[in-house]
Amino acid sequence: MNTERLEQQIRFVLEADRIKQITRQSYLADGSRKENDAEHSWHLALMAFLLAEHANEEIDVLRVMEMVIIHDLVEIDAGDTYAYDDAGNATKRQREEKAADRIFGMLPEDQAVWFRQLWEEFEAAETKEARFALALDKVQPILLNDSTDGKAWREHQVREEQILKRNRTTPEGSRALWDYCAKLVEKNVEKGNVRRS
Amino acid sequence: MNTERLEQQIRFVLEADRIKQITRQSYLADGSRKENDAEHSWHLALMAFLLAEHANEEIDVLRVMEMVIIHDLVEIDAGDTYAYDDAGNATKRQREEKAADRIFGMLPEDQAVWFRQLWEEFEAAETKEARFALALDKVQPILLNDSTDGKAWREHQVREEQILKRNRTTPEGSRALWDYCAKLVEKNVEKGNVRRS
Repeated sequence: MNTERLEQQIRFVLEADRIKQITRQSYLADGSRKENDAEHSWHLALMAFLLAEHANEEIDVLRVMEMVIIHDLVEIDAGDTYAYDDAGNATKRQREEKAADRIFGMLPEDQAVWFRQLWEEFEAAETKEARFALALDKVQPILLNDSTDGKAWREHQVREEQILKRNRTTPEGSRALWDYCAKLVEKNVEKGNVRRS
Repeated sequence: MNTERLEQQIRFVLEADRIKQITRQSYLADGSRKENDAEHSWHLALMAFLLAEHANEEIDVLRVMEMVIIHDLVEIDAGDTYAYDDAGNATKRQREEKAADRIFGMLPEDQAVWFRQLWEEFEAAETKEARFALALDKVQPILLNDSTDGKAWREHQVREEQILKRNRTTPEGSRALWDYCAKLVEKNVEKGNVRRS
């Protein structure tokens, strides 16, 4: 038994715990408070195997789950950048790369490489698994927003075109989930929760 | 496309959101507040693939991840029963079965059966995947307790024999993780964070 390897892994497990304190802009389904990255990532992992049948192509569900579980770890250093914060998004990639270096760099070398690849695959959105994982990452806040009568959308005065732009690749991951969400967005435009572009 | 099936799945996704409000007794690694079931389940899913090499037997990692993601959903109705609450644990199984009927019963029939089987498999601890999942479920709070200088253990005046009894099956899932944790427990007994039996 390689004790140093296990100790290194456990230090990573405890460092990763900090993701529970990174608050997102989406509210819980009952609107009582905003959710955090750990809760969001748990939700995506549940959706990954529950909704796998709705991916456009047959996917490796384990790989999707690994991606969604780790995709927000970089926010421990880089913070959550709100989807519709243009200034924040201009520097997002640079801040997150630096975070990935430090955080995944805590792992034993083989696992540091593996986790970095998982994160880069998610970010690049070029594999069918990454496209489905990204679709889930975009769909989940739409479901929460609709469930709270557009609470976060209204707070940030989000416009329809912003949501559509953000979701331009969602149909490439899951046509079915996007069709479902497009109706929710339209309903919220009609209700005045999302601003007509 | 079967719209009713997808709508049923989405209702389940939103019902599952309530797990984010079920508070556990374990504190976050920095001791700032107690964690909830969604955060705990996310942590176990991360540990499942990060620490899979420490399972006693080669395991189906996807199955372990599915189990840990859903294992606490019954607590939406049944509540979190603290590990060392004897009265609560006497009625736990009955309360959780009723919860499983309702919550998994929200799913399309094939998925209701699948999720119920996953949960029963976890509870029964008879497969190698369930034994590893259960080991993670017991190891994670030990790591958090050690990280917070035994905060939850001290609050509940937990005795060493209670931890050892609760972890009697942990070595069956992962001898390596239990060996690591046994040392942490002993250290906390010596520090007075856990009461000597």
